Amino acid sequence: MLSTTGSEAYGYPLLIRHLLVNVADQSDAEIVSGDLRFSYRDFVDRVTRLAGLLAARGVRAGDTVAVMDWDSHRYLECYFAIPMMGAILQTVNVRLSPAQIDFTLRQSGAAFLLHHADFTHLCDQLLPGLPQIGGVIVMEGAADEDGYEALIAATSPDFAFADFDENAIATTFHTTGTTGDPKQVFFSHRQLVLHAITLAATLANQPDGQGLRRTNVYMPMTPMFHVHAWGMPYAATMLGVKQVYPGRYDPATLLALKQREDVDFSHCVPTILRMLLDAARGERLAPWTFVIGGAPLPLALAQEAAAAGITTLVGYGMSETGPIITLARSAPEDIAGRCRAGFPALLVQARIDTAHGGELLLRAPWLTQGYATQADSDALWAGGWMHTGDVGAVDPDGALRIVDRLKDIIKTGGEWVSSVDLEDLLVAQPGIAEAAVIGIPDTKWGERPAAFLVASQGAQPPDPDQLCAALEHHVTSGRISRYAIPERLLMVDALPRTSVGKIDKKALRLLLAE
Amino acid sequence: MLSTTGSEAYGYPLLIRHLLVNVADQSDAEIVSGDLRFSYRDFVDRVTRLAGLLAARGVRAGDTVAVMDWDSHRYLECYFAIPMMGAILQTVNVRLSPAQIDFTLRQSGAAFLLHHADFTHLCDQLLPGLPQIGGVIVMEGAADEDGYEALIAATSPDFAFADFDENAIATTFHTTGTTGDPKQVFFSHRQLVLHAITLAATLANQPDGQGLRRTNVYMPMTPMFHVHAWGMPYAATMLGVKQVYPGRYDPATLLALKQREDVDFSHCVPTILRMLLDAARGERLAPWTFVIGGAPLPLALAQEAAAAGITTLVGYGMSETGPIITLARSAPEDIAGRCRAGFPALLVQARIDTAHGGELLLRAPWLTQGYATQADSDALWAGGWMHTGDVGAVDPDGALRIVDRLKDIIKTGGEWVSSVDLEDLLVAQPGIAEAAVIGIPDTKWGERPAAFLVASQGAQPPDPDQLCAALEHHVTSGRISRYAIPERLLMVDALPRTSVGKIDKKALRLLLAE
Repeated sequence: MLSTTGSEAYGYPLLIRHLLVNVADQSDAEIVSGDLRFSYRDFVDRVTRLAGLLAARGVRAGDTVAVMDWDSHRYLECYFAIPMMGAILQTVNVRLSPAQIDFTLRQSGAAFLLHHADFTHLCDQLLPGLPQIGGVIVMEGAADEDGYEALIAATSPDFAFADFDENAIATTFHTTGTTGDPKQVFFSHRQLVLHAITLAATLANQPDGQGLRRTNVYMPMTPMFHVHAWGMPYAATMLGVKQVYPGRYDPATLLALKQREDVDFSHCVPTILRMLLDAARGERLAPWTFVIGGAPLPLALAQEAAAAGITTLVGYGMSETGPIITLARSAPEDIAGRCRAGFPALLVQARIDTAHGGELLLRAPWLTQGYATQADSDALWAGGWMHTGDVGAVDPDGALRIVDRLKDIIKTGGEWVSSVDLEDLLVAQPGIAEAAVIGIPDTKWGERPAAFLVASQGAQPPDPDQLCAALEHHVTSGRISRYAIPERLLMVDALPRTSVGKIDKKALRLLLAE
Repeated sequence: MLSTTGSEAYGYPLLIRHLLVNVADQSDAEIVSGDLRFSYRDFVDRVTRLAGLLAARGVRAGDTVAVMDWDSHRYLECYFAIPMMGAILQTVNVRLSPAQIDFTLRQSGAAFLLHHADFTHLCDQLLPGLPQIGGVIVMEGAADEDGYEALIAATSPDFAFADFDENAIATTFHTTGTTGDPKQVFFSHRQLVLHAITLAATLANQPDGQGLRRTNVYMPMTPMFHVHAWGMPYAATMLGVKQVYPGRYDPATLLALKQREDVDFSHCVPTILRMLLDAARGERLAPWTFVIGGAPLPLALAQEAAAAGITTLVGYGMSETGPIITLARSAPEDIAGRCRAGFPALLVQARIDTAHGGELLLRAPWLTQGYATQADSDALWAGGWMHTGDVGAVDPDGALRIVDRLKDIIKTGGEWVSSVDLEDLLVAQPGIAEAAVIGIPDTKWGERPAAFLVASQGAQPPDPDQLCAALEHHVTSGRISRYAIPERLLMVDALPRTSVGKIDKKALRLLLAE
């Protein structure tokens, strides 16, 4: 067989730029950011200006450009312009400690920084120690003539984006693992384009009201510095969806934007959902679909959300996975079914490593190929599969359940007890808002569970004996083993959390050790 | 910045095999073929057996395996098993003449042939002249012990699919152009995977009832030998959609399957739609969505379909494009809006080359990179864009209209007249079922239009004077120029068609020249 290739045939590398090839011609939706509104034609124009501006400031292909901002149209412009010019977007986790932010900027070798005025004080402290950062732009409104808006307006929209290798790194950021320094992960253009298309296909094939389609109105509530805001801005922009960027998260603002702009699709960690429901004080919020991730979604919280008109479904992923791996789906009334991690997205291969504690192993076209250090990268990919550190199980319908973190699962009396299961049962009890369970060393049983509890607002502190009696009931029914009854129950005002709102079990272990 | 890659990191090549990674675990839908029904688990098992069977018969990676069949589960199995084992699937157009089929088998260098028993006589004629075809399997039911079903049942499902370069050719077939020999086109694994995901994302983001989602029931009505049945079987299989394969197309069978299996999504050329409506004799067919392509969809036909409960929308593409390039979408009642080619699919870049007759030029990640001969490939891709040979125009809403074939557009009196426009106006007249317009040489005007007309079943032959008067009305309204009034109107019993049902204008020009 003789096949020939046209000498000028276009091979079409998968570049972030290609997500925008036809959206300005097709979409008449707006991108809303605070009081500003942009058409998709405006947006593409501004992305081109931003690339021209950065190029004029000396940014070249291969340079790392760090961004510190709340969720804004400016951040979205950075999501596109920086990779599209061949530079690398570093999304800096602004909730890390100053020392950790310094660490991440240093490790990424950032050559340029764009930051919101809220971080001016912090950057003034850090920049003298980071001489490789050769330029800074403050992401300021039009009033400031040296700010982002004025500079964009003064730049001509004629930057010519060139093609390059689709395997070039497009984005980088650091994980928020609770052990050791944050680890740097990397995503290529190819990976992000494949993530965007596959996510769009997977979300649009969800049952009605459990996904995102072109006609939805999207507002992120997972910060844009956190795993590409779960990749949703890339998918939503490619589709020309109406988007609403809410700035720094404040429950009242989020609720007001939902009502003003008819937002009906968002995503967040359970803590943000909790805050929103508290702030809504019984207000009806339908229609509003939430993809929930980052931590297990307690059934009680999902039910409370449903009562307020919110449809919840869990999505599973992590910093290393770009992040989308699974999405839950079920019949509308089956709220519990959507508290599971759910079904692998298109192209995602998931395997339970039964020989090693049931760890979930993954393959997908968009997983980070490694970290900054070779030893970490080799451990992540040992055996040709990505190790999640999560324990998974598959239900008869094919849906994945995350049983626990491999390091949080409690081995007691020769049995495995899922800390997540136990937290779910505790939160279902009256008067308990939040629960966190860890294992404490026990000479006889190996480990025993200890539970930290936060009482509901205005509720009486729960009675420990009643709680244990309620759990005994689940022992009788076979739901949990008798070893799962916590050895200790501790009331606390709040649970320690990591910078992205996950419960910090390492801090709890230290607390108990003291 | 230091990024490292895990020494065992999985790079995830885009292979056809990866479309099947999780569908058997997630889908409880069936694949129906005549009276046979298979689960997706059965299907994956059978694909693995087929690869094992072909390997045992000597098929190796890089070999071309030709298939001649009507639309069946067996053809679908070939769509997967042959490329998955690294071989090349040749979908043979069984409607070509024996000489042309011989030409395509010879040019592809097919090393193995699977064919339906309907083609035994033809193959007996051709095979002695094609000694490179080293093995044949007849795609026969279980009764025949040397047939496909018996052989599959006797093969163990343990074939181990290996990874290889995603740019390896997966499929090949020949165009059905009306000029010269059929041209061979080629599609790689990467191209077909990108086509499948992007098609799935684009279809699922269509308005309700104008696309395909996981819960639809799909039946092809464009033959599987014709441009991968528009790529729908790959997308539908990846999503785990219920699929119905109807064998050789027969209107009564298609209608019976629609009702028995609740088919609600199909695709076909306008001629098939015409046949179905005639066979349905007023039966309600809702819900049923048809993507229509291969030829312009006359508004009158779309309206007649709507009256029977069928939602039509045009999709535009060609053999060289894999094929999906655009899909129409509009408000449910806007039937005319969906008679346009519509909106470029995700990642598709379309350009109108105004300097050269308004030819539509394309870039997408799944366009054939060339033909069998270098000169043809270079012409296809001159200037780095794929030349469609179609004249396009973009409406204010961003939707593409195909004005005509570049070679069919008629230049008369210094003006361009679209043969397609004129056909549309003629078919809208009472008593006319089909129309085809060509340009005839004219010493004074350059060209003048001539129209071939087929009268509606049972209708009086139309009066030429009345027809011309009706067209004059469109001249007055400004819809067409006065040069567009045909010089000649010829009634014919039927229009000559190509092997895939397109009107053969080359034959009409010859007819008129005689």
